[in-house]
Amino acid sequence: MAVQHDSTGAGQARTDRFLLSLGRLLDDAGLIVESDVLARYSCDWTGKDRCSPLAVARPKTVDELSRVLAYCHEHSWPVTVQGGLTGLCGGATPRSGEVALSLERLAAIEEFDANADCMTVQAGVTLARVQEIALQQGMSFPLDLASRGSCTIGGNIATNAGGNRVLRYGTARNLVLGLEAVLADGRVLTSLGTVIKDNAGFDLKHYFIGTEGTLGVVTRAALRLYPEPADRLTVLASTTSFSQLRGLLATLRRRLGNRLVAFEAMWDSYFECVLTTLGLTRPFANGYSHYALAEVELLEPEHDRRSVERVLSDCLEKGEIGDAVMSASCADATRLWQFRESAGEMLSRLAPAVGHDVSLPMAKMDVYVETVRARFERELPGGVCVAFGHLGDGNLHFLTALRTAEDAEALDSIVYGELPAGGSISAEHGIGVSKKNWLKVSRTQTEIDLMRGLKAHFDPRAILNRGRVV
Amino acid sequence: MAVQHDSTGAGQARTDRFLLSLGRLLDDAGLIVESDVLARYSCDWTGKDRCSPLAVARPKTVDELSRVLAYCHEHSWPVTVQGGLTGLCGGATPRSGEVALSLERLAAIEEFDANADCMTVQAGVTLARVQEIALQQGMSFPLDLASRGSCTIGGNIATNAGGNRVLRYGTARNLVLGLEAVLADGRVLTSLGTVIKDNAGFDLKHYFIGTEGTLGVVTRAALRLYPEPADRLTVLASTTSFSQLRGLLATLRRRLGNRLVAFEAMWDSYFECVLTTLGLTRPFANGYSHYALAEVELLEPEHDRRSVERVLSDCLEKGEIGDAVMSASCADATRLWQFRESAGEMLSRLAPAVGHDVSLPMAKMDVYVETVRARFERELPGGVCVAFGHLGDGNLHFLTALRTAEDAEALDSIVYGELPAGGSISAEHGIGVSKKNWLKVSRTQTEIDLMRGLKAHFDPRAILNRGRVV
Repeated sequence: MAVQHDSTGAGQARTDRFLLSLGRLLDDAGLIVESDVLARYSCDWTGKDRCSPLAVARPKTVDELSRVLAYCHEHSWPVTVQGGLTGLCGGATPRSGEVALSLERLAAIEEFDANADCMTVQAGVTLARVQEIALQQGMSFPLDLASRGSCTIGGNIATNAGGNRVLRYGTARNLVLGLEAVLADGRVLTSLGTVIKDNAGFDLKHYFIGTEGTLGVVTRAALRLYPEPADRLTVLASTTSFSQLRGLLATLRRRLGNRLVAFEAMWDSYFECVLTTLGLTRPFANGYSHYALAEVELLEPEHDRRSVERVLSDCLEKGEIGDAVMSASCADATRLWQFRESAGEMLSRLAPAVGHDVSLPMAKMDVYVETVRARFERELPGGVCVAFGHLGDGNLHFLTALRTAEDAEALDSIVYGELPAGGSISAEHGIGVSKKNWLKVSRTQTEIDLMRGLKAHFDPRAILNRGRVV
Repeated sequence: MAVQHDSTGAGQARTDRFLLSLGRLLDDAGLIVESDVLARYSCDWTGKDRCSPLAVARPKTVDELSRVLAYCHEHSWPVTVQGGLTGLCGGATPRSGEVALSLERLAAIEEFDANADCMTVQAGVTLARVQEIALQQGMSFPLDLASRGSCTIGGNIATNAGGNRVLRYGTARNLVLGLEAVLADGRVLTSLGTVIKDNAGFDLKHYFIGTEGTLGVVTRAALRLYPEPADRLTVLASTTSFSQLRGLLATLRRRLGNRLVAFEAMWDSYFECVLTTLGLTRPFANGYSHYALAEVELLEPEHDRRSVERVLSDCLEKGEIGDAVMSASCADATRLWQFRESAGEMLSRLAPAVGHDVSLPMAKMDVYVETVRARFERELPGGVCVAFGHLGDGNLHFLTALRTAEDAEALDSIVYGELPAGGSISAEHGIGVSKKNWLKVSRTQTEIDLMRGLKAHFDPRAILNRGRVV
């Protein structure tokens, strides 16, 4: 096994030799060892457990990346895989002595195939860039999350990212037609088919989607594109109870069908907090118990807009919602989305603060939120705990300002401990290191054993993201 | 290793002891050994390579099934897993000496959860029954294939079935929220969550979906339901070229968006053949080079129907289609679907006949079809080869009446040999045994090696569907 951070001269000499050989596998800009630059690769978006890697390997080609992994495998040297470092679970944060493998120089758009509604890209390209290129061609890559400007497609795939439009388009998994991944030993598995239906043997891409870089490194993907709708419409509505909020979602789904692409819920605690913290203007004269932000794709803009108006006025008439406002322009929509997308900024401003990301059956959500908040107020007084999430997907986020950072563990116990049967400790952020000890809440021992077995099968020397997930 | 069909007395005694013990794990109706009954479990829908199993184990509970597998694993006894026996690739056809494991008594609907848009069922229930139960509750389980009355959910999942509505709802994979599978050694892996988003560790269900029972036996599934649309509309349209047909698909997708749920293509050769063979009435006065059958979901029936009419009349006016007819009633729709759904019956009537199921980029489809048909006519004269398929998904079927059954292998060489890069030898039917030798056309050696490694990892004694897929 590799000697890491060995303080003896022999250990240091071994490390030096290792880095020297590693550097030879890459071009001039391929290996970073300068400590001030290394610091940029020392943690994910949370800033927690900061630790500079031993070095950063930045391959420019898949072939280089393959040789880097083969070499690390040969020497059993642990590697942490890094995309845009926007993760929230510590999965990409290096541990002492690890080499960081950054995909930042593998960021080309390789092919845009309008005939196949498909774009083939390298893993290091940002989500925003992919969205932009698609839009230039009148198409849409519908994966969308607040970190779009920094997160990379490789990271999105490795973590099976979700975001705002899962209701309609699914998670990252549903948007990948073909995939290329490099195995721990350097073997390159290229399967960049662009057809929707392909049952020729096991669909191997699913071993790399959502496994957080523990079974292989995603290097390329053929992404599925959709026609960009003629227009979009954003609705902010309020209700006086959670059950009304659920009723609104059911009504919108029934009457708008798949044109409803997002349905974001915000509890009043969240809504009041975002108004105060970000200094936003209150959209309605009154306060309500719940708010929903819905996005609707318009195919026949005038008609579809009237349909949405009709649904909302029916709901208002029947007293099924408190109030509602529709975006009249793109700027309007952006303004309405601010209530929801400011969550990240709010998290920074309320430090020490933590975010949680769970999913559970909608029928149990209301009671769960109340239980968590009540326990939080009783057991960890002096903080603020607010709830919001992608209601349409059963995905609930908590954002909690703690009195002291030391309370984080006790909060985890409340949030994960109270999760009802059928709930998941991670709806979309993944497990990384921070949720690893809680995995048993959502997974049986048989499942965890199977995951460990697969990890050992794919990466027998455990060089890839060692100690993450399982 | 197990001795199978050993003609010596010792081998027979060992087999008898094995069956006796196997029977003790099941209830009275649990083990079939009578040869006349065994014949019913001797082949899939093709009727090819008929072989009665040694016995049929029909567990009534997952616990019984688990004990059967543990026992077979202990004795390294090969097992073939059987659903509705509607497969077309020989995957469920027993080989000499194998025990057939039938899921037919595990056919309960266990839970219908309207709150979670979900139904939990046992694997042996038929697709038609699931569709029916969903519909009774105003919901839709959108997976749909011609064999709906016989095929089972377990088989649909194990083969990642596709069918008519993949364009809108995806394949079986996309409709499974949670899954239970029994591993080769009898361990039960239960993960029946109903939430859409769950990134708590590796998503293990994908290792059993589409792997044709080689890695584990699917026993239960939590299925995703959708609201049943207010109405449906079927369109039959004709064009004078393949490029017009593609243009029609693009136009419908752009103007109807996701309300378009199916787009089936039929080449004139297919269309004329179905008219003649089934004695159906010609829908248009003229003949055309291509036909499309489209299904549209209507949310606001009157308005949506007018939208479709407008799209079609625009296309007619611009000369983008030859002719078109819209269903005015459910009976009408059924009549139109007959042109497409009679493919199975046509296959029987034209015996010896074979079906092929490939997928490829749409841009290459026209040339590919012409090449295959030209080579067929030149090299295997005296037969009929017609093309149709789920065009929206890049899925193409050939139905070929052969002069003699011996020509089947030569036909495979043409169909798979001419497949362009990026094509798949199996869009939806799977690999089974009949496509195994062709897998290398669509998969690299690295991929096949990885599949074999996974098979050995999950099922080290190769008892599950031994020799299938890889």
